[in-house]
Amino acid sequence: MFKISSLAVAIGFVGYMSVAQAWEALPAVAPAPADNPTTAEKVELGKMLYHDPRLSSTGTVACASCHNTMLGGEDNRAGSMGVQAQVGGRSAPTVWNAAFNKVQFWDGRAASLEDQAAGPVTNPIEMGMKSWDDVVARLKTIPGYKQAFHKAFGTDVISKDLATKAIAAYERTLITPNSAYDKYVGGDKTALTEQQVRGMTKVAELGCTSCHSGAAFNGAGTFQKFPVHPNGYFEAQNHFSKDKGLAEVTKKPENAHFWKVPTLRNIALTAPYFHNGSVATLDQAVKVMAKLQLDKELSKAEVADIVAFLNALTGQFPKQTMPTLPATPGTTFNK
Amino acid sequence: MFKISSLAVAIGFVGYMSVAQAWEALPAVAPAPADNPTTAEKVELGKMLYHDPRLSSTGTVACASCHNTMLGGEDNRAGSMGVQAQVGGRSAPTVWNAAFNKVQFWDGRAASLEDQAAGPVTNPIEMGMKSWDDVVARLKTIPGYKQAFHKAFGTDVISKDLATKAIAAYERTLITPNSAYDKYVGGDKTALTEQQVRGMTKVAELGCTSCHSGAAFNGAGTFQKFPVHPNGYFEAQNHFSKDKGLAEVTKKPENAHFWKVPTLRNIALTAPYFHNGSVATLDQAVKVMAKLQLDKELSKAEVADIVAFLNALTGQFPKQTMPTLPATPGTTFNK
Repeated sequence: MFKISSLAVAIGFVGYMSVAQAWEALPAVAPAPADNPTTAEKVELGKMLYHDPRLSSTGTVACASCHNTMLGGEDNRAGSMGVQAQVGGRSAPTVWNAAFNKVQFWDGRAASLEDQAAGPVTNPIEMGMKSWDDVVARLKTIPGYKQAFHKAFGTDVISKDLATKAIAAYERTLITPNSAYDKYVGGDKTALTEQQVRGMTKVAELGCTSCHSGAAFNGAGTFQKFPVHPNGYFEAQNHFSKDKGLAEVTKKPENAHFWKVPTLRNIALTAPYFHNGSVATLDQAVKVMAKLQLDKELSKAEVADIVAFLNALTGQFPKQTMPTLPATPGTTFNK
Repeated sequence: MFKISSLAVAIGFVGYMSVAQAWEALPAVAPAPADNPTTAEKVELGKMLYHDPRLSSTGTVACASCHNTMLGGEDNRAGSMGVQAQVGGRSAPTVWNAAFNKVQFWDGRAASLEDQAAGPVTNPIEMGMKSWDDVVARLKTIPGYKQAFHKAFGTDVISKDLATKAIAAYERTLITPNSAYDKYVGGDKTALTEQQVRGMTKVAELGCTSCHSGAAFNGAGTFQKFPVHPNGYFEAQNHFSKDKGLAEVTKKPENAHFWKVPTLRNIALTAPYFHNGSVATLDQAVKVMAKLQLDKELSKAEVADIVAFLNALTGQFPKQTMPTLPATPGTTFNK
């Protein structure tokens, strides 16, 4: 069910890294797997499916409902709200730049965007479809999808495999380049304020970038224990340890409280924070991370510098056209 | 609370009209009230507000959730689903070409798009905000909206009045011209099939266009009793009379079961049908209307011809760019 790629290799505590941090700009194009090259037709179909609430049992919840492409790629909620107002236990991760994650979901249980896209549709508290067979049957009743699948894949087949490939192809276009940070790294030394540069140096010095490494500050597939330094005060406040993370999937005690390293890109837009969305502000999130991961208490000035830097990771959101979703003739959603 | 413009004049049974029907193409531009001229900046702000789920208590329901601009302007549900999965008693009318309705809502209780836009936001089973003061307070916490309101209205004020004006200005751009019917009326006699022309003649002969008159087939603000000819069979099936329509607003017995004449534009895309969404298909909707309004039983061929014509009323949906919604710094929706 869950493909964890190279998990044994990926898991493990990444040691304190030297301050000689390699700062990378965000690539303009996301890598695509060999069996799902990105094409314009696939992206268009994927965009339709991604925004189509008819992929849910009630006809009210699309991928975009919780991973909102008009916002920071999520919903600013602690737990997302699926069909019948059911609230999930984890905070929706942003879809923007998810293409640069080597693994998907908070617990990294999906090895690709294709695998990830299959999950929420049939999750009873997310989009609530009974099965992908039901999803495919519904898509087949919509004549416009037949054409769109044909354009994208050159076949009359509509299937879970092709639908999730199209959604993943679309998601690979959701990249936010040209943040102030990217401009700075590209040579424009005026792109960051002095405070932001101080924050940038600080995140390397402190060791934040040991885990939040690479162009997307996401460790490129590494898992990390959280919290590293258990703390009674924060546990009472935020209940971080209630969710065992990767161990909920693998059932292995050694995976308890291991999580995918999430991207810091556009982090200023994606409050609330952490897997359970229990922290409302970026200031507090920085304090929590310093204490629980690095056992450090930051001064107010240090927090402000780091937050200023994190704000420099907000990228440019590409203008997208809205998809025109093909009509369902005589189909009603009454649940 | 409810402004009913010229209701006394508008209400009344519109008699059988001559077959010499005046067929009109859809205007490319919708009329705007003198105090809210349509401008690009207002439309852009209105598009943002219309698609912003943060106008709801849970942060999950936007205007677009039930009046989906990527679909036929509604949600293909009998009753729409608002916050906390509450289901309304009436089927969401399409937003496309709503600018050509002289009155809004099924019961016509709003005299303008501006008035209409104010309603659902604070309806407890729709968007669930406690008050417009709360909506305005929330909008004020989003720095990007301050700029967008300033661009649209040249003022730093954010208010219910300006927000609903912007939403209405956006809605006035949601026009679907160039249907097969419009092309035919414009002189292209190949635009309709023979069957569609038969259906077009039939809707005039039968008297459908007595009420569904004008370019938008919406009677331009006339109200009509439904059902005119009560029918035990359909009442048992569809419970049409459970909802008293306009009388629910005015409390006047003479307004019982009076409704705004809804547009037939894009009707093929907006199943299910009628105020309570109790009829799943267009075929059945045509049969029901003939029986309950005109006391006529149509043959299968007549129904097929009329449905073919109604399909010719599906217009061209303009390509729209998705709005980029400004971020809420550190704001969380937990309800």
